[in-house]
Amino acid sequence: MSSPILISLDAMGGDHGPSVVAPGVRDYRKRHGGEGVRFILHGDETAIRAEMAKCGLTDDVCIVRHTDKVVAMDEKPAQAMRRGKGSSLWNAIEAVKSGEAGAVVSAGNTGALMAISKLLLRMSAPGLERPAIVASWPTPKGVTAVLDVGANIESDAAQLVEFAIMGEAFMTAVHGVARPTIGILNVGSEDMKGHEEVREAARLLREGGFGLDYFGFVEGTDIAKGTVDVVVTDGFTGNIALKTAEGVAKFIAGLMKEALTSSVTSKLGALLAMPALRRMSQKIDPNANNGGPLLGLNGIVVKSHGGATSAGFGAAIRVAVELARSDYMEKVGANLQRLTTLLEDPIVSSAEEPVGESIQ
Amino acid sequence: MSSPILISLDAMGGDHGPSVVAPGVRDYRKRHGGEGVRFILHGDETAIRAEMAKCGLTDDVCIVRHTDKVVAMDEKPAQAMRRGKGSSLWNAIEAVKSGEAGAVVSAGNTGALMAISKLLLRMSAPGLERPAIVASWPTPKGVTAVLDVGANIESDAAQLVEFAIMGEAFMTAVHGVARPTIGILNVGSEDMKGHEEVREAARLLREGGFGLDYFGFVEGTDIAKGTVDVVVTDGFTGNIALKTAEGVAKFIAGLMKEALTSSVTSKLGALLAMPALRRMSQKIDPNANNGGPLLGLNGIVVKSHGGATSAGFGAAIRVAVELARSDYMEKVGANLQRLTTLLEDPIVSSAEEPVGESIQ
Repeated sequence: MSSPILISLDAMGGDHGPSVVAPGVRDYRKRHGGEGVRFILHGDETAIRAEMAKCGLTDDVCIVRHTDKVVAMDEKPAQAMRRGKGSSLWNAIEAVKSGEAGAVVSAGNTGALMAISKLLLRMSAPGLERPAIVASWPTPKGVTAVLDVGANIESDAAQLVEFAIMGEAFMTAVHGVARPTIGILNVGSEDMKGHEEVREAARLLREGGFGLDYFGFVEGTDIAKGTVDVVVTDGFTGNIALKTAEGVAKFIAGLMKEALTSSVTSKLGALLAMPALRRMSQKIDPNANNGGPLLGLNGIVVKSHGGATSAGFGAAIRVAVELARSDYMEKVGANLQRLTTLLEDPIVSSAEEPVGESIQ
Repeated sequence: MSSPILISLDAMGGDHGPSVVAPGVRDYRKRHGGEGVRFILHGDETAIRAEMAKCGLTDDVCIVRHTDKVVAMDEKPAQAMRRGKGSSLWNAIEAVKSGEAGAVVSAGNTGALMAISKLLLRMSAPGLERPAIVASWPTPKGVTAVLDVGANIESDAAQLVEFAIMGEAFMTAVHGVARPTIGILNVGSEDMKGHEEVREAARLLREGGFGLDYFGFVEGTDIAKGTVDVVVTDGFTGNIALKTAEGVAKFIAGLMKEALTSSVTSKLGALLAMPALRRMSQKIDPNANNGGPLLGLNGIVVKSHGGATSAGFGAAIRVAVELARSDYMEKVGANLQRLTTLLEDPIVSSAEEPVGESIQ
């Protein structure tokens, strides 16, 4: 039924390489059927084949492309770009560039993945310095997409609008939300709050005719509430918000563990409540929402956490498959084109330029 | 033993007015003795005296200054400045300006408190647009001060250094940390990460001779870990980090409640573990760390949460007393002066100006 598709995997990436990538493929197929989905695994053939055998994966599902070369997890992006050619990471991306594969997944070095993806695939969003990373944030309503969470340190209004366009298409393609709502992260919900970049981005989203469901400004508390489907923010604030949240979740988990093991009575209580508590922790398990696409490239690249489990890697594969099968690239392409045209229009862009110049 | 001191209270501020302010005074005295500390309560005399009577507070502890006028919780700052004169909020701050009181505490309208404090007391930190707000963030090690969490949207390097100076003195005065460590919030710990403002602030803190214990860049996860005693950030990022954390904590608390009431067995488990869980939730109870000083003014102003309990208001009084009794103002004054001198020095400020200009 579904169209056949090829997913390129960096089998050597991450903390565990093929011993998580092969079980990740198995896990994806178990959960999602994987009909019509085949994989190219790039890396050490012997190691990959050994893990494939353990997982019962055969050549009709996995194509192995041997390479000895690996980009180390701590390698600097510039170095990885210079000497990464022919590595499992590089070859995995090149399979997308050549059109052979519909998407690539890697749990490898984030900086290297970003740099080599940008080098090989080039940016499709003209305003972006580098790809934007999306976090799928658990909320009582499901998942909210937050972007950018780490790549673009200073984001002007046009970049924020690009994040909105890409985040919206991502929510539809991957999380099946028909008409995602979009909020811009700010320090208050009133129109005059925040700095020039967020106010101008809000104006463009309201008046730009992108066909997006723009909700307005949202605050930090709104992320975990799930007030909107897509939260747009610059990469500096987004990265800090995400990591702050991770720190708080870990702190509370630590306190809870301490409390539930502090006495015999509380240990007994914890034992009784354990199945419910386990279900709860699954809701905020980062592996369940693993797979952060790097958006804004001419091709689909998905980053898995370096330390993801096989279930986590399987979740990242799912993100790649859903994006590759959707009309994400076309939808985004059309709206990015619209933005470019809008910004060239002197009337629309007047808020950013002195009037004298835009009249010329 | 301790020197006598007068604390000015906006008795009408917050969601509950005198019915929390008077019990707050009683709570403070019960926990901290309050020897040598007297209070001026500004607001409706009849209402205040009724609450004082309930709490057993007499005239030798509380001086009542009547006024009918109150700034509403939803009044715009500009409006509050125009027509707030003679209100309980205004008079409470004026008692600090005149030198009668050593500090003021209000649970009232934050924007109005900021605006009227700035109007009456004036800024002591020359680079700041408005006062910086400090959040006392619970960590496994105790408390980390995070500032600014909401006032200054765009902060240059000099402002970030001012936050470091004020946050450090705050941690010593209020939390008794002898030599607080300071980190600047960033997207990574390497020196070249982040935007120009944070890198330049780091350089000033390293090389400026402020006598501060500068640790380096910290990430979002480091806040709740307690990696440093003071986390410095611009008001935009700080506000979003704080509110994101609040949202996440609330989300996890909701999941936990849901899990612990999901079945008879888990309810029984929750019952057994309840004392331990209650002790845990006290550690992250916002009332325990209530009282965010507005820093950078010529006078000590402490903001209590509008919805604080009497224990929470008592905690805010403690912050005001500790700041007023310490050498906070002198210590900060000396280092702010040092910063001003440094920034006027062409060699030190060369990173911010073209060389040609700074040589002239």
